[in-house]
Order: sequence, then C-alpha cells, then structure tokens
Amino acid sequence: MDLNIEKGGKKRVVIIGGGFGGLELAKRLRRSGMQIVLIDKNNYHQFQPLIYQVASAGMEPSSISFPFRRIFQRYRDFYFRLAEVESIDFTAKTVITSIGNIGYDYLVLAAGATTNFFGNERIKAAALPMKTTSEATAIRNLVLTNIERAITSTDSQERQALLNVVIVGGGATGVELAGVISEMKRTILPRDYPDLDSSLMNIYLIQGARRLLPAMDPTSSAAAEQFLRSMGVNVILSKLVKDYQDHRVQMDDGSSIATRTFIWVSGITGVRFGNIGNEMIGRGGRIKVDAYNRVPGAKDVFVIGDQAIMSGDEAYPDGHPQLAQVAIQQGRLLAENLKRMEKGRALQPFHYHNLGAMATVGRNKAVAEFRLFKTQGWFAWFLWLVVHLRSILGIRNKMVVLLNWIWNYVNYNQSLRLIFSTGKSCGKDD
Amino acid sequence: MDLNIEKGGKKRVVIIGGGFGGLELAKRLRRSGMQIVLIDKNNYHQFQPLIYQVASAGMEPSSISFPFRRIFQRYRDFYFRLAEVESIDFTAKTVITSIGNIGYDYLVLAAGATTNFFGNERIKAAALPMKTTSEATAIRNLVLTNIERAITSTDSQERQALLNVVIVGGGATGVELAGVISEMKRTILPRDYPDLDSSLMNIYLIQGARRLLPAMDPTSSAAAEQFLRSMGVNVILSKLVKDYQDHRVQMDDGSSIATRTFIWVSGITGVRFGNIGNEMIGRGGRIKVDAYNRVPGAKDVFVIGDQAIMSGDEAYPDGHPQLAQVAIQQGRLLAENLKRMEKGRALQPFHYHNLGAMATVGRNKAVAEFRLFKTQGWFAWFLWLVVHLRSILGIRNKMVVLLNWIWNYVNYNQSLRLIFSTGKSCGKDD
Repeated sequence: MDLNIEKGGKKRVVIIGGGFGGLELAKRLRRSGMQIVLIDKNNYHQFQPLIYQVASAGMEPSSISFPFRRIFQRYRDFYFRLAEVESIDFTAKTVITSIGNIGYDYLVLAAGATTNFFGNERIKAAALPMKTTSEATAIRNLVLTNIERAITSTDSQERQALLNVVIVGGGATGVELAGVISEMKRTILPRDYPDLDSSLMNIYLIQGARRLLPAMDPTSSAAAEQFLRSMGVNVILSKLVKDYQDHRVQMDDGSSIATRTFIWVSGITGVRFGNIGNEMIGRGGRIKVDAYNRVPGAKDVFVIGDQAIMSGDEAYPDGHPQLAQVAIQQGRLLAENLKRMEKGRALQPFHYHNLGAMATVGRNKAVAEFRLFKTQGWFAWFLWLVVHLRSILGIRNKMVVLLNWIWNYVNYNQSLRLIFSTGKSCGKDD
Repeated sequence: MDLNIEKGGKKRVVIIGGGFGGLELAKRLRRSGMQIVLIDKNNYHQFQPLIYQVASAGMEPSSISFPFRRIFQRYRDFYFRLAEVESIDFTAKTVITSIGNIGYDYLVLAAGATTNFFGNERIKAAALPMKTTSEATAIRNLVLTNIERAITSTDSQERQALLNVVIVGGGATGVELAGVISEMKRTILPRDYPDLDSSLMNIYLIQGARRLLPAMDPTSSAAAEQFLRSMGVNVILSKLVKDYQDHRVQMDDGSSIATRTFIWVSGITGVRFGNIGNEMIGRGGRIKVDAYNRVPGAKDVFVIGDQAIMSGDEAYPDGHPQLAQVAIQQGRLLAENLKRMEKGRALQPFHYHNLGAMATVGRNKAVAEFRLFKTQGWFAWFLWLVVHLRSILGIRNKMVVLLNWIWNYVNYNQSLRLIFSTGKSCGKDD
C-alpha cells in the first residue's frame, strides 16, 4: 500500500501543496467519488496575506495557521501525508517522497513559490526571507534581538546597524512589512524601550522598479509611497541591491546601508522537484501549463497557482500574477475539470476573473483597486480588513484575529513581543 | 557605564531571573528609591504552571508568556537586560554576563532550577525536558510528528514505539502532562487521524516513589492515580528509569518500554553560575541561604525561589518545596527587607505560609488540598481554573486563556496542532 493508503478501486488524486490553490481543489473534490491525497511539508495551511503581521509581533503564528487534519476532519476518503516531495516519475505515475512512494491517477502540483535570491549566495546566507510563518517568526526574533543588542552596544556604528531595518522589495509584502515596522517604531519602541532613543531606528524600503506596487495602478503606487514617507519610512526607488558585505547592503549605484536586519522580499521562484526538466519551466521558475492547467504532453498532470505559468488566457499573455485569487480560481476550475474528465466531458479553459487588488500600509492607510473604482486611505483599509477576515479559515481563527485587531487598534500595544527560539534564527547572521 | 545604565547616585539592585520570585521582587521594589536591573536570558516571563498545556497543543506559548518590557513599561529607573549570566565576582560586586559586566549594591539570584538528568548523558541526549515554553513546544512537535510517522510506518514495532508516550516523573508536571495527552488521545486522535487506530497509542507515567504527587497528601495521590487509570494512562510506580537505548526506556527491574516520545520531568536542580563554590550548594543543587534569603557571609547577596534552600524556617527543616508560592512570598519579603536595610532597620525572617497545593488531571478532574479541607474531582478542578486564571499576568492574556479554555471545554477540539520548527526539536532523536 502506498503510504499506507488503500486505494479501494477509486481514482486517486494526489495534490502536492496545501496553499490556497491545493486547499480549494481538495475541498471542491469532496464527494467527487475520487480519493484525495494531500501532501505538504507542513501539517498546516498558512494564511500568507497576514504573515507580515507575525513578523511585526502583531499576530501569533497560530492565528493564521490551520492544521490540515482539522480542516478535513469530516471528509471521507481524504488522506493527509506530512512529507517532502523529492521527485516525480511521470512514466510510472508515482510521486517519490521523503516517507515513501505513492502512485496517482491524477497529479496536481500546487507547491507554490519560494524566495528568489537571484543566485546571490551571500545575500541568500545573510538575508531573511518572509514566505512562511517560520520565516516571519525569525524576522520577529531578529528585530527584537537587535533592538536589545543596540541598547547595550558600546560602538555607535554597530548600534546604528542594529537599528537599521532594510527591506528589499517594494511589492505588497515589502510595503506592508515596512508599514507595520514603522508603526512598531512609533508606538511600541518609546514605551517598551525607554532607555533607547527610538528616532535612531531607520526603516529603508528598497525597490528596483521606479515605483512601489508595480502590479497595481500608478495612483495606488503613489498613495502607498506617500503613506510610507509620512510614516517615516525611507523609500528608495530604482536601485538594485547587489550584495551584502561587512553588514552593509550594497546597491548598484555604489551606495550602501549598514544593517543587521536585512529582509529580502524581492522576488519569488516556483518550487522545483527533481525530474522536472528545464524544458518544462517558464518565466519565474514556473511550470508551463495550457489553459486547463495541464502540463503539455501529460494528460494526468496539472499545475495550479504560483507554481504554474499558463499560456492561453488571452488577457494574460505573460501568465497570471502570483496571487491567492488566481490559485483559488484555478483550484476551483480544476476540480470541475477533473469531474468532467471522469464523465468524459470536454474541459473548460481557465480565465482569470480579477477581483481587484489591495495592500495595507498602516492604521487607516491602504490602497485598493477594483474594476469599478479605486480608493486609498481609511475606506481601503476597512475593505482590506473585511476581505482578509472573511478569507481566514475557521470561526475560532476569525474570532482570534478580529479580537487581536480590535485590541491592537484601541490599545496600540500588543504583548506578543516574545523572542522564541526557532530553527531558522539560530543559523542566521552572527 | 555598566550595560549602558547610568547609576545616578542610587543604590542598584540587580535581579537575575524574572520567574515568579524575581518578578514579585521587582514589582515590590517600585518606588523604593532604588534602581532595579532585571537580567533574564529570555525577554519574557513564563507562567510555568500552564506549560504542560502548551505541550499538548491546547494553549499557545504566547498566552502564557509576557514580555518583561511590557510588564515594566510604567516603572521608573527600571532596566531590563537580555543576557546570560556567566559568573559573579562577589569581591568586586559585579555580575559578568554575555553582554558585559554590571556592578551591584544588592544582588538577588532568582534564576530558578533546570531539569536534572542525574548525570545520565544518554537520557539527557534522548529525553525531552519540559521546564520552558520552548521545551514544551518541542514536545508538542515531537508528539505530533511521531503520530504522523506512525501512520506510514511499515514496521509494526516502530509504529508502536512512535505511538508510545513515556513520561518519567510522577510529580504535578508528570501527572498533568499524562492527563492532557490522554485527553488528546481520546478526543483528538479519532477525529484528526481517522486512518490510525487510536487505541494503539499508549501513555506511560513512570514514578520512582511509591505514589504519585509525593509532596501532597496520600488521599490526593490515590485520587490522581485513580483518575489517570480511568483515563487509560499506564501508571507505573516504584520503578526507576536507568537508561534509554535502542529507542527503549530501561527500568531498574529489567523491564523496558519502546518509545520515540520520551519525556523527562523527573527532577530539577538549581541553576548554577561560575564561581559559586560547592560549599555554597545544598541539597538539589540549591544555594544555601539563611532565614533572610541571604547567602551566609555575604551581606548583599540573596537567593530566592527554586534556586535557594533555606535553613531557619522551623516548619521546613529540609528546605521549602520548589513551588511558585514560595518564590513569590520570598520575593515579597525580600523587597521589604531591602527597604528595611536601607533604613537601618532589623530584617524579618521568612516563614512560608502554605496556601495549599493542587494538580489537575483532566476535564473536571483535579486534586486540591488546603489547610481546612481537601477535595478531589470537579470542584478541585474548578478551583484550579480560578486560581490559575487569577495568577496570569495581564488582562489580555487572562481573556485569551479563559476563552481558550471555554472553547476547548465546549468543543474538545483546539486547532493548535501545528508543528512549528523550533531550535530544540531539530537536534533531538533521529
């Protein structure tokens, strides 16, 4: 038996990755008559849009993480397996994992993307990425530890490097992270660290492109930049980070910033497994798929979400943006298409229905754009809260997150500034 | 300046350790006219009595941890320093720490106790202790990971070892941990792991003494044992664990139990710093103090709580039990005595006022004993809840813990079964 799962005469769908896409697909295949096996290297789904609040100690990792087994408690013929996928044998229709092999009738890759350091090993070794809750916890620990170290540092240059936070990447993640850290500086630092001059803390947001939030409308970019500058964030545009040496971030124009808190949210690349040849890979390390999310030439292998790059959706000739909504909509359609295949019916091609985009910068400050209107400021911020609260899984987590937000809003004073040891933080920096 | 703290003509009290004793002392010294410096290796106070609920995934670490800087936000001339104490120079009246040296006028050691493996290196390398929230998180991760591994294990002996939980130590911690893990087996396993026969999970509680909870009355011990047995825990009395080899816990009568989840809560020993000579150490690795918690011969050095063993309290000729209440009462009296010393007045000797003892075993099941009465069952359990909720710091944490408990009580179904990577778990076992 594969991974101790009896097949029992049903078709088996193996889904690799329980992010937004894989989760939606698995849910939609309930009562499809097929057996579902979900493989993930974590035992929980992470709600990625709020990970930056974990990094700023405003939210607990558990509030935005949900155990898969809990989500699928009432599903029949559903199996979760905690494993790392090593490679895929397309001929034998088998997935090779860290805990054994499993055969499939349909295979769906939904493993998402990982941080792209663009081949720079020194940056990779020094910078903290922020794609997972573990990584966000490591950032929280580092920010807090460096503040503690700054207090007793006897070298003023070292102290400044400990208090400079450099965030590379001006997409939504970078903008949101710069925003919360600047709020932490303004509201928390003066109270928690009376023996530190909080004005010494500098937050830098470095963006290679000419504007922040390049995936959004220029009015949103301008508003976000204006919000951040009003909050004291040093926004640096049109500069590329080339290196990190002697605790300094080096930019392509020769300038540099001393920092011990070097955060890299500048790019992502699709997760790769063994035996996936380069001929299958498109832009951004993503696996090329047709309009049915199918790998060309393989009738039973699909890729959805950030890991896929689709040709065939006319409005998106260069592939879709790597957003939760794309993954969710692809998961939803693929569930339908798999059921259609079982009935011998024709497949439906995917067309992304753009529901809009939003990014929050701070208290009452966000940018949002929809098909019919754009808005910036408190109303965008309110919409952002509603949309994200709605999307969080589970009543308990919704309640916890909402109470948390209300508490923080009224109080400015979350008590989660705990430096818990994590695997990640031990190896990084010195 | 010592650790960047200006003394400004005041007397300085350096407190090492912000557990129950150190925290109480620091709070009581507010407005004493003295400068307070609290040194701890964590940036948060941990509420130890509930750590076992973190291990069973019923409670978040953050719910029972409180950042020191938050607690002392409104204190004047109070300084927190995140550091490890290396040694103490009693002649120069200086504490040597990982981040520099600091002089003191009064020094109070309140660093508590750590797990005692009684010199057995193999047990130390294999067993998980549970004195801190990090350690409790590591236990949570191991229990959950081993269940996941058991599901796909193809070797029935290995599977059984993965599903056997062995807890060594029948004090309150061991009893409470065995209780929550057996509730997890009963309520969570069948729902979260439908593809696992939950009856295969065995929980063993091994106690060297002839009864559980030896510090309590025999009626309480008997009730706790009865509760645990009714919950399916294998209680093993009068056996000492001698070794751990080939994934088996070896007992002194030659019997052994196969397990990959080996938890050691069998004893503690006082925290030691460099230059504290053996002549200063009494039973249990604790530093000997007189009735004023003073180290004999040193007029300005005090030890309180688990780290101290006092002679001079007539009712406790062998020293006090290592309980939160003792530490709190010693911290409170020492604050008074330091103020008295400043005024040239005579010191008051310490007498422990025993407020009672309690241990919870499970849902509606606890034992409690007070001066006037003893009780077992739901009323003891209710008292336990009230007493512990009252003691948790901060309104927000009280609310979070209470909501958590209510949710779990009604629902039997907490969603905190998240395997987050921690520094501890990576090194242990294979």
